[in-house]
Amino acid sequence: MNPGDTLRRLRETRPLVHQITNYVVMNETANATLAIGALPVMAHAPEEVEEMVGLAGALVLNIGTLSSSWIEAMVLAGRAANAAAVPVVLDPVGAGATRYRTDTAKRILDEVDVAVLRGNAGEIATLAGVDAEVRGVESIGAAASAAEVARSAAAALGVVASVTGSIDHVSNGSRVVAVENGHPLLASITGTGCMSTAVTGAFLAVRREEPLEAAAEALAAFGVAGENAAPGAKGPGSFHVNLYDALAALDPALLDERARFA
Amino acid sequence: MNPGDTLRRLRETRPLVHQITNYVVMNETANATLAIGALPVMAHAPEEVEEMVGLAGALVLNIGTLSSSWIEAMVLAGRAANAAAVPVVLDPVGAGATRYRTDTAKRILDEVDVAVLRGNAGEIATLAGVDAEVRGVESIGAAASAAEVARSAAAALGVVASVTGSIDHVSNGSRVVAVENGHPLLASITGTGCMSTAVTGAFLAVRREEPLEAAAEALAAFGVAGENAAPGAKGPGSFHVNLYDALAALDPALLDERARFA
Amino acid sequence: MNPGDTLRRLRETRPLVHQITNYVVMNETANATLAIGALPVMAHAPEEVEEMVGLAGALVLNIGTLSSSWIEAMVLAGRAANAAAVPVVLDPVGAGATRYRTDTAKRILDEVDVAVLRGNAGEIATLAGVDAEVRGVESIGAAASAAEVARSAAAALGVVASVTGSIDHVSNGSRVVAVENGHPLLASITGTGCMSTAVTGAFLAVRREEPLEAAAEALAAFGVAGENAAPGAKGPGSFHVNLYDALAALDPALLDERARFA
Repeated sequence: MNPGDTLRRLRETRPLVHQITNYVVMNETANATLAIGALPVMAHAPEEVEEMVGLAGALVLNIGTLSSSWIEAMVLAGRAANAAAVPVVLDPVGAGATRYRTDTAKRILDEVDVAVLRGNAGEIATLAGVDAEVRGVESIGAAASAAEVARSAAAALGVVASVTGSIDHVSNGSRVVAVENGHPLLASITGTGCMSTAVTGAFLAVRREEPLEAAAEALAAFGVAGENAAPGAKGPGSFHVNLYDALAALDPALLDERARFA
Repeated sequence: MNPGDTLRRLRETRPLVHQITNYVVMNETANATLAIGALPVMAHAPEEVEEMVGLAGALVLNIGTLSSSWIEAMVLAGRAANAAAVPVVLDPVGAGATRYRTDTAKRILDEVDVAVLRGNAGEIATLAGVDAEVRGVESIGAAASAAEVARSAAAALGVVASVTGSIDHVSNGSRVVAVENGHPLLASITGTGCMSTAVTGAFLAVRREEPLEAAAEALAAFGVAGENAAPGAKGPGSFHVNLYDALAALDPALLDERARFA
Repeated sequence: MNPGDTLRRLRETRPLVHQITNYVVMNETANATLAIGALPVMAHAPEEVEEMVGLAGALVLNIGTLSSSWIEAMVLAGRAANAAAVPVVLDPVGAGATRYRTDTAKRILDEVDVAVLRGNAGEIATLAGVDAEVRGVESIGAAASAAEVARSAAAALGVVASVTGSIDHVSNGSRVVAVENGHPLLASITGTGCMSTAVTGAFLAVRREEPLEAAAEALAAFGVAGENAAPGAKGPGSFHVNLYDALAALDPALLDERARFA
């Protein structure tokens, strides 16, 4: 793992991260993408997603506020990304909560070659066929350990599974990397999971041959920013503000020092 | 009224509040819902709204950025909520500004059993057939007194009417409760009305048999948070940040002490 | 130029600014509109856009997250605005990045009488047929000078072209006004361009006969607010918060003193 170096290259190359994401967090993920040093673009029209993804360094698909036309756009963009060798990150928000979300996430996994699947333990467990309890879009817990959820999902689905929680676990099916960064306040605002997915897209754009490393490094970067955002925060509002400041201020050398992989 | 106790139970049970709301405030209402202690979920696809609302403790419908497919989803979700005894809150944003909004709010009131109708005096007056002046989605004033608007709307529409303004008025058609909390800065940012509707949904989820009390307590809680957010705010931006901090920090005992019902 | 006087009149009359804009920035542009002193309303349904724009002092069209039904609504609203003599501002977000965006911006320019076209140099150059490099929705640079892009776009398209960058240039095809306000941190958050477009709409609503002056004054106002927001900002998050505070606190006399037109 070498997160500082990846972050340095990200800021030099400023990759474009094409995001087809949910209405709740669009502003948040765009600002997180900018703050970490990449360029966001949101585009969901079938008329332009294939052209747009051709300009991008990574594609992020997020099913947080689905509808049928958006699903078609995601599949269209995903296939075009595959054809152009642009890596794809999928965030299966709420998989397990409704059949529609579970089925859509599975359909995208079937029809698109997904490099990294980033979700909470409940969502990923659902897609891997492991027992999990999901409530709305917030994961309450998973019967299996998060590490095992990550490993079995990666193996079953042929992706790098990036399972976030109090400790994150990233796996390619054989190796499991634990990332022990982050802060409890990250769970106090909506969209931090989606932001970590966007940041994963940005890291993947500069380290596309090593999705396991890119995903783990991205979570370390996001987690360290979360840690740096906490001092002085009086609650979710001020933490949210500090988080953007911390992402933008994240120093590559400090990131290497503070990243905790296991 | 016992807002502290309701807030305490809300935080223990963390009800899921399903929201079909407008694009402008989705992030805001999700974060307000989380900050007060409940769990938000946004879902608007006809394919999933009925299943999602079955998992929820309350359903919030908000017509702030309408289109035909969203209206169908609102009606579908509203009926499913009724069938499952999940209480429904309607925020008729901009009723009176355009015929489309007025007609849509009326259609939802016709086809869905709405527990609480939360709006400003102009919107509620329009729906109750009382004279009012509405301009865009901001209410400028109402010919009738807000208390009378609340009472007559509740009686005419068979709902608890929750009319917000410098003083809020909540009525079930016979009783009118005035809530004298809040702060002028709440009017300086967009979406605070919508946030108060989301918080109403969260309170209603834990006090569903007493919608009058739930609605009044929710406005007191939101208003006291607004009061607590004002000191130190230098304008709408910093007030907005403080408001989330204040919602999350809201202490049940302090809420009981500071809530002003009349 | 008399930005202080325009701002004073704006705050007295509180014009309604009807915005059909993108999902990423809706909350941001609504709050910027409120903070500067006008009233925002977002409405995109074909069933209501014509009625809504009739209530408005200006119409803002922004193509940042396009789809076919939104384009139809923009054209419908734009024509109704023309018929009612409501001035129209167009923000061609991402023109040049995909053919769909370029074609849509051109279609709107063809079918709607646009008073002010507000974009970055790459977007405006694309629409004027001048060479430019565009990457996603972020402009990287333009071959022609920004002043020349503004002048030639205004002449070619029959609009006031408002080209923002480190120095802004506003032209009606003959005269070019440079606006030397602003701060580098404005580029660190998403949606500041869109906010400046919304503020342009608000200024245009009170100075509709002089779109060149309205556009230049709006950029000066937004730029001075950006300058005032920078001290104390620790990064994009705190700058974003300060920006709303600074827009709301912007003093007309100070604006006259600090506005730098050339």
